[in-house]
Amino acid sequence: MNFEQIFTNRRAINFFNPDKPIDPALVKKMVEMAAKTPSSFNLQPWSLIVLTEIDDKLRLQKCAMNQAKVSEAPVTMIVLADDDGFQEGNKTVERVFQENIKAGAMTEKQRDWFVKVRSRLYGKDEQVTRGFSAKNTGFFAMALMLAAKSLGIDSHPMDGFDQDKVIEEFKIPANYYIPLLISFGYFDETKTLVEPKWRKGYDDILVRFDE
Amino acid sequence: MNFEQIFTNRRAINFFNPDKPIDPALVKKMVEMAAKTPSSFNLQPWSLIVLTEIDDKLRLQKCAMNQAKVSEAPVTMIVLADDDGFQEGNKTVERVFQENIKAGAMTEKQRDWFVKVRSRLYGKDEQVTRGFSAKNTGFFAMALMLAAKSLGIDSHPMDGFDQDKVIEEFKIPANYYIPLLISFGYFDETKTLVEPKWRKGYDDILVRFDE
Repeated sequence: MNFEQIFTNRRAINFFNPDKPIDPALVKKMVEMAAKTPSSFNLQPWSLIVLTEIDDKLRLQKCAMNQAKVSEAPVTMIVLADDDGFQEGNKTVERVFQENIKAGAMTEKQRDWFVKVRSRLYGKDEQVTRGFSAKNTGFFAMALMLAAKSLGIDSHPMDGFDQDKVIEEFKIPANYYIPLLISFGYFDETKTLVEPKWRKGYDDILVRFDE
Repeated sequence: MNFEQIFTNRRAINFFNPDKPIDPALVKKMVEMAAKTPSSFNLQPWSLIVLTEIDDKLRLQKCAMNQAKVSEAPVTMIVLADDDGFQEGNKTVERVFQENIKAGAMTEKQRDWFVKVRSRLYGKDEQVTRGFSAKNTGFFAMALMLAAKSLGIDSHPMDGFDQDKVIEEFKIPANYYIPLLISFGYFDETKTLVEPKWRKGYDDILVRFDE
């Protein structure tokens, strides 16, 4: 498949073959491909809880309107966006800073400047902070679904879950927001996929307000 | 380039060749490819202001810490996320609903149900709403950068701009949030690209809090 085919063929798959697991090496591969996603100041405020055990998937399914695909898919992921992912003291933020120093891109003397610019851009209020964590994790999630498709793996992104229940069930710390769940696997060929949904066209997407 | 090469070769390009325009047909093509991005209930809360005229790009550059790439790149886009993109009466929401009816996926009788589920998932407060608009537009922006790369076009995503100033300068309505700007073009071959930045690995990305 060339890139355009990957784009076109990536569809949200409602029915996964529960008897066809994903090779763990492919799961690793798709995460490593998506890991190259760009982010604000390279802060990479994303993490994944990867569920493959049936018990775990059923625990999640209970928090997700009992959607069967959550447990039928061989792998279902809880995607996490770190609302603290720009804050001084955050583990990834510190690692990014140290790696920048190591690469000669920043010096220790720029610590205060880096704190200030992050705080100014992402720390104004909760809404602004959520924009930071959600957009970057959005980049990552899209990359992950496309990487999967390039490896022949289907996916289904889901918003139909109770944020608070998932956080409680999986003991997720309060700094994380869950933008979506994604099930991964292989389409159940006994089912029929509906026609692709309507999408906005080029002329719908392009706007201008000052002319 | 295969998909993995597109992923690997997509780099944030600081220096664009200002004398090498992008064929408008390719700009259209990359937007149309990215238009296939999935979104929450297919609501597609994204729009683009596409700037190609030097005067427009310089107006934007003034709002973006005077970063030269904003005007040096042949095309710079203001990416818009619609915070109203789940609300009843929103133009795109209504279109999606009508297209669902046309496709037999919903009936007019489901209007109230559809309003309620959108409101429950995305309308709780400003932070939750921003999560909705930012994550979905994040999916779209990532798809756009990858689509561009698949067509041989480089890009540079930017957070370094004054949200309020851009909104004022381009008369952008109050329902829009700007997750990022993206410059598109071709790398200035007289410049040298820095080494790829550090990224989290598989073991950094996978987390678990309940074990």
